[in-house]
Amino acid sequence: MLQNIKRPTLLLDRAKCLSNIRLMAEKAKKHNLIFRPHFKTHQSAAIGEWFRNEGVEAITVSSVQMAQYFALHGWQDITISFPVNIREISEINQLVAQIHLNLLVESPEVVHFLKHNLTSSAGIFIKIDTGLHRSGIDPADLIMIEKIIEAIQQSDKMIFRGFLTHAGHTYGSKNKNDILIIHRQSLDQMAGLKNAFSEFQPLISIGDTPSCSIADDFSGADEIRPGNFAFYDMMQAEAGSCTPGQIAVALICPVVASYPKRSEHVIYGGAIHLSKDSIRYSNGLASFGRIAIFNGNHWQILPEGNEVISVSQEHGIVKLQQEFYDSFIPGGLMAVIPIHSCLTAHLIKQYLTLDGEFISMMLSNNN
Amino acid sequence: MLQNIKRPTLLLDRAKCLSNIRLMAEKAKKHNLIFRPHFKTHQSAAIGEWFRNEGVEAITVSSVQMAQYFALHGWQDITISFPVNIREISEINQLVAQIHLNLLVESPEVVHFLKHNLTSSAGIFIKIDTGLHRSGIDPADLIMIEKIIEAIQQSDKMIFRGFLTHAGHTYGSKNKNDILIIHRQSLDQMAGLKNAFSEFQPLISIGDTPSCSIADDFSGADEIRPGNFAFYDMMQAEAGSCTPGQIAVALICPVVASYPKRSEHVIYGGAIHLSKDSIRYSNGLASFGRIAIFNGNHWQILPEGNEVISVSQEHGIVKLQQEFYDSFIPGGLMAVIPIHSCLTAHLIKQYLTLDGEFISMMLSNNN
Repeated sequence: MLQNIKRPTLLLDRAKCLSNIRLMAEKAKKHNLIFRPHFKTHQSAAIGEWFRNEGVEAITVSSVQMAQYFALHGWQDITISFPVNIREISEINQLVAQIHLNLLVESPEVVHFLKHNLTSSAGIFIKIDTGLHRSGIDPADLIMIEKIIEAIQQSDKMIFRGFLTHAGHTYGSKNKNDILIIHRQSLDQMAGLKNAFSEFQPLISIGDTPSCSIADDFSGADEIRPGNFAFYDMMQAEAGSCTPGQIAVALICPVVASYPKRSEHVIYGGAIHLSKDSIRYSNGLASFGRIAIFNGNHWQILPEGNEVISVSQEHGIVKLQQEFYDSFIPGGLMAVIPIHSCLTAHLIKQYLTLDGEFISMMLSNNN
Repeated sequence: MLQNIKRPTLLLDRAKCLSNIRLMAEKAKKHNLIFRPHFKTHQSAAIGEWFRNEGVEAITVSSVQMAQYFALHGWQDITISFPVNIREISEINQLVAQIHLNLLVESPEVVHFLKHNLTSSAGIFIKIDTGLHRSGIDPADLIMIEKIIEAIQQSDKMIFRGFLTHAGHTYGSKNKNDILIIHRQSLDQMAGLKNAFSEFQPLISIGDTPSCSIADDFSGADEIRPGNFAFYDMMQAEAGSCTPGQIAVALICPVVASYPKRSEHVIYGGAIHLSKDSIRYSNGLASFGRIAIFNGNHWQILPEGNEVISVSQEHGIVKLQQEFYDSFIPGGLMAVIPIHSCLTAHLIKQYLTLDGEFISMMLSNNN
């Protein structure tokens, strides 16, 4: 069956994925942390059950629509880890009537809006910016944080839960030590807040896969929300969060043309399958995906230097070291290990397990 | 209605799109060129009808599934401008039984495969690499080209149509003159082939939107296949292919958080909506989308320096010049002019016209 793949297909190694989930669940237990995995990576009710089997009851999502999808599939405790989009208040109100929903705020204005518009209770986390500078409040801005907590307290519909951060600047790290430094700096800032606002008994929720994979000191944190670790990818392997052998997904692509003079093949597999995310190796070479040999049963990752070097809409250009060039011919299949598995999964919208089972995802959250 | 947009929504200015289509159709007519527009940009049967109203009867697509979709919607003459993926031969055979289908080849091996496996007639173009170095045969390799034509002639199912190229290296151009130079070099190489193989009366088919938009000399070409021009985007505007005012699509995004100290807003609109395609302005600043003010009826593009400066899965970080910062607040809407409209449309999968009509696209070609 796998030998008959016709078009770019996202293969999922169930055993690897289950092992990644189990390892993280055990780590959370060992450190007395609430394990609230981020489901934006897989976006699949079926894969969600694999987490449930490891005792997971609370999850994280990145949009109201994703919360609706997982609520429909029986998840009763969901944090939407994205600043409240007040334009979706009617959908939010439908959710708070059904499940335990946690929302993210970072301004008194949005809290005031919720005070006047929420129709059932919601938990509220304040988003803290510990260095990524994407969203969140500066942890040194205690006046603003106090103002927001006060506003939350004025509403009987909002229950202050604590402080949440995503130290996503670990993704750019090139080694484990850099990740651990960012992780510690982030936790120290959060610990300062926990101390400053101890009367409210705030939970401290942290998130990123690199920190959660590598760190062995979570003192100060109450909850972890990693997501990518279920699959991992080349970006994580490069940062040292995982070994290449732990990566649980590979995009299988038909080879459609070959160029021996430049040791390149063209595959049916481009930006609409892999995304345009890339990494740059220490030698300066950019990669849009690492090449692996696919024997019809599993994939075997080739060494650095065997890469998708560019992508357009449907095309991927693959450059191989000479010794591997002849492993592929037009009409054959090639495996590509994604740079960023979350985006690749989102684009493909379906998994095929190594044992031949199709697993569906939520449909587009764009309409 | 447009004021009630809740989530990232791709607005389409029908008048601008119709005008872009009409201008290109008239240009093709003026230069006696077959106009075979590429439909991978819009991927919509409804928008396809706008082309039909301008007299278009032949189209280009980039996958077998896209050919199936448009064949189903009444298109009888389709070129799949992607190297033949022999794994889809059964789908190809279904198509050749129904419509005039043109396929792209670039090796004798694939031609031999088609000879033994095609069940009805197909037109065949040989893909030529005039400098993009993505796919295609070196136009200097006359021996290989002759070998392929001979192989095509040996089959009664294959009708040799001519030579096809995509001078996509114009996309990286920073001005019109660079585009014209590439266009001329590409046409000269194709003219050489037309001459060398004149006994077979080959058609010369060229493709890219920058050349087709700017050039006024198409001597040597018989057919043009531009696609992006229907919408255009910031990449095309930067290259000089269009004015910003010609761009027919904008992604409307809710503002979810604001950071006055760094003159930044965060929008609900990220890599899963805009893609990770970016351009770099001459001052070195990278942009993932140009910001425009949206008044509920139409958008007004802000000057360079008002940009989406980074995207993650759902988040976009927007940096604004001080004077425009206060035009946006959380809960409001912001328009983003895509860097690459083809990828944005592919991700959103639906258009909303300025007059409030939803227009659907073909569903994912990933399953």
